[in-house]
Amino acid sequence: MDTDTIAAISTPVGEGAIAIVRLSGPEAIQFAADVFEGKQLKDVDSHTMHYGKVIDPATKELAEEVMVSVMRAPKTFTREDIVEINCHGGLVSVNRVLEIALAKGARLAEPGEFTKRAFLNGRIDLSQAEAVMDLIRAKTDKAMNVALKQMDGRLSKLIRSLRQELLETVAHVEVNIDYPEYDDVEEMSHTLMKEKTKEVGAEIDKLLEVAGQGKILREGLATAIIGRPNVGKSSLMNTLVQENKAIVTEVPGTTRDVIEEYVNVRGVPLRLVDTAGIRETEDIVERIGVDRSRQVLKDSDLILFILNHNETLSEEDKKLFEAVQGLEYIVIINKTDLEQNLDLEEVRALADGKPVVTTSLIEEQGIDQLEQAIADTFFSGEVDTGDLTYVSNVRHIQLLKQAKQALDDAYEAVELGMPMDIVQIDVTRSWEFMGEIIGDTASDGLIDQLFSQFCLGK
Amino acid sequence: MDTDTIAAISTPVGEGAIAIVRLSGPEAIQFAADVFEGKQLKDVDSHTMHYGKVIDPATKELAEEVMVSVMRAPKTFTREDIVEINCHGGLVSVNRVLEIALAKGARLAEPGEFTKRAFLNGRIDLSQAEAVMDLIRAKTDKAMNVALKQMDGRLSKLIRSLRQELLETVAHVEVNIDYPEYDDVEEMSHTLMKEKTKEVGAEIDKLLEVAGQGKILREGLATAIIGRPNVGKSSLMNTLVQENKAIVTEVPGTTRDVIEEYVNVRGVPLRLVDTAGIRETEDIVERIGVDRSRQVLKDSDLILFILNHNETLSEEDKKLFEAVQGLEYIVIINKTDLEQNLDLEEVRALADGKPVVTTSLIEEQGIDQLEQAIADTFFSGEVDTGDLTYVSNVRHIQLLKQAKQALDDAYEAVELGMPMDIVQIDVTRSWEFMGEIIGDTASDGLIDQLFSQFCLGK
Repeated sequence: MDTDTIAAISTPVGEGAIAIVRLSGPEAIQFAADVFEGKQLKDVDSHTMHYGKVIDPATKELAEEVMVSVMRAPKTFTREDIVEINCHGGLVSVNRVLEIALAKGARLAEPGEFTKRAFLNGRIDLSQAEAVMDLIRAKTDKAMNVALKQMDGRLSKLIRSLRQELLETVAHVEVNIDYPEYDDVEEMSHTLMKEKTKEVGAEIDKLLEVAGQGKILREGLATAIIGRPNVGKSSLMNTLVQENKAIVTEVPGTTRDVIEEYVNVRGVPLRLVDTAGIRETEDIVERIGVDRSRQVLKDSDLILFILNHNETLSEEDKKLFEAVQGLEYIVIINKTDLEQNLDLEEVRALADGKPVVTTSLIEEQGIDQLEQAIADTFFSGEVDTGDLTYVSNVRHIQLLKQAKQALDDAYEAVELGMPMDIVQIDVTRSWEFMGEIIGDTASDGLIDQLFSQFCLGK
Repeated sequence: MDTDTIAAISTPVGEGAIAIVRLSGPEAIQFAADVFEGKQLKDVDSHTMHYGKVIDPATKELAEEVMVSVMRAPKTFTREDIVEINCHGGLVSVNRVLEIALAKGARLAEPGEFTKRAFLNGRIDLSQAEAVMDLIRAKTDKAMNVALKQMDGRLSKLIRSLRQELLETVAHVEVNIDYPEYDDVEEMSHTLMKEKTKEVGAEIDKLLEVAGQGKILREGLATAIIGRPNVGKSSLMNTLVQENKAIVTEVPGTTRDVIEEYVNVRGVPLRLVDTAGIRETEDIVERIGVDRSRQVLKDSDLILFILNHNETLSEEDKKLFEAVQGLEYIVIINKTDLEQNLDLEEVRALADGKPVVTTSLIEEQGIDQLEQAIADTFFSGEVDTGDLTYVSNVRHIQLLKQAKQALDDAYEAVELGMPMDIVQIDVTRSWEFMGEIIGDTASDGLIDQLFSQFCLGK
């Protein structure tokens, strides 16, 4: 375990009133005290704040006016001594304070290293650590609630109890094996094993059932708007952005050119293709035979497919219907303010059970119904983050699927009359897969890789 | 004076580990206590931090895990009760916490309102308040030092002492007027007035002398790179950006299209025209007769004018020399790695005393000399932010000039034998102008306008 002292800027980069440089580790308080003019930080109580000045040790000159918070181990985020230096939120000032901390001997923290220490020091488990990052990246209230509950340990608790059940089952069977003098021991073991693998498997299935929704809440729905020219694609884009709170974020680690626009439709975050992308979909009709266009559609979680109420179904429209075959889409018949020339029966037949909504975007008609259709498509009408435990993380979903598969294998092995120690291997595998979710059985490599995806200073 | 409780997000907008929602006012602690699950905030000591949960009063559900800092009046930034709620640095979480604070009854703070309260409550004067914003916006270490010293009250102290001197002079003269029985009273008043207006005027001149440099440190030098095609404009741009730490900032209040790139050359912040601008200057040669091109040059504080060592001086080059006539420029003779065909004597004659530097950007030669020439042009070789009091703010410079002018008027009035009460009007005007700098004689309108330029949450 690392025991050096790390430092990083913990607030977002930019101009603001306040920025924070955070230090964590055995020498955090010493380093801060060395450059702080004000109270003697080594003597202050834990969880207290102190106004003073940072003096550059190199020049002995005033470097910044700050407010320093001292938090002593173990009641801190990392369970180590933590010092937070609140300085002015300018690029120069916060970097200056950080550089002084580094000059004193602190090491620049890696991305996620504070949270990693919280994990390594046992304050939170791996799924809770991952939830911290999900919370920060959450694009909607509901996504934040999912993360908040995971951070609070709801998923961890459930996983722990399932693992415990498997462990007890294995132990029980072991005991049975140790007492072979009883006649019905083998029968009992078989029954117990089948019962328990089924029971735990069913619990996992319940988690997986809503996991797709959890994933959508967490990552947003990649949404494409398609249709012939002039059916109202841009109008729909604008309507969705205006009606709902749009959050524009730059994708971390990329240049400023990549932008994702999130629109929160009844709790469902739609990740709309950016302006360039919209322009691209303009061409989809023309290039519908081209593989690349089909790929754009395939990469979408949801396709909003617009038809013109005023025109009969064209060959192009029919090609689009073919293109969206097997994908998740909603048909929008726009321009109901104009005369009807579209054969609705024909459209419904082609839509084959997918929702068909009529709108007049220009007259702001039908938007409610469209939004409801979007929500219905993924959440059967309601997103309930209150009671359900949503597994939202792809890694967790994958591990749960593997854990379930291992239990199915165990069940089948019993059915096939395999020896109990073979069955136990499957059960143990399931137990290990679930352990990876909370980090009990995760490898160092995995842990390093997970935390490296965090933002700096967290 | 406002006595309600205000709230705002005080960290930069974006994703980060920590974000802060700050409350200030008589009900700050009450509002926070109402939604906080943890310690009873109303009972805690000042300047202490408390871990707990924010519960949404509307839903009674967990809204966020937070660390709350309580600071009680009057030892706070605003001299009011302040609560800082440190939450996760995500867009949703920080907005959620802010909204809960507003729902409890806090009012969304206007830009700069926290600092305005610090000013109105007498904790800092106007020039110190302005320095806070300068500090946040500082692009270089030296700019930050100028702001830091101003924030520390160095300028305020000087202004106060000059005003005091004027006040004492007026008082002294008043006393003299009250004792007309003495013969030499009038003579004494005249002498004193001339002496003091000259003395204070000289002090103001000293401030104004380096004010241009202060302004450059604060705002950066608008720098244009010109020259015929292929002389190395882009190479120079890249060299400056690579050699020095470039800070890219979005200009507040504008769309993301306007970008300023700052390059820190020996403490001098060069504000380089953005890529679009560089492309524009590419055309300057062709369009040199056009007014608009001349305007680009006139708006620049510094022009880097590149010639080709390998070519004889062309008509275009000569036109550029005409265009930069009377402006601040440095001639760069690039491509010394190639054969010399340029007549250096001719160039030096045309440059007329302006610096001429030879470089080979491709071989990384002459860059040091160029950077030194840039620094020399504005700071006679050295930027000393240690001892001088730099007036950097245009508003302050303007007021100092007016104060100086009023003193000159007073001096002249004495010379012309004007009555003492007329002279005193000029001296009082000077005293008032200086009062506006520190806010003693500033109008409400001015104060509102100044603080409205602050960033949110400060």
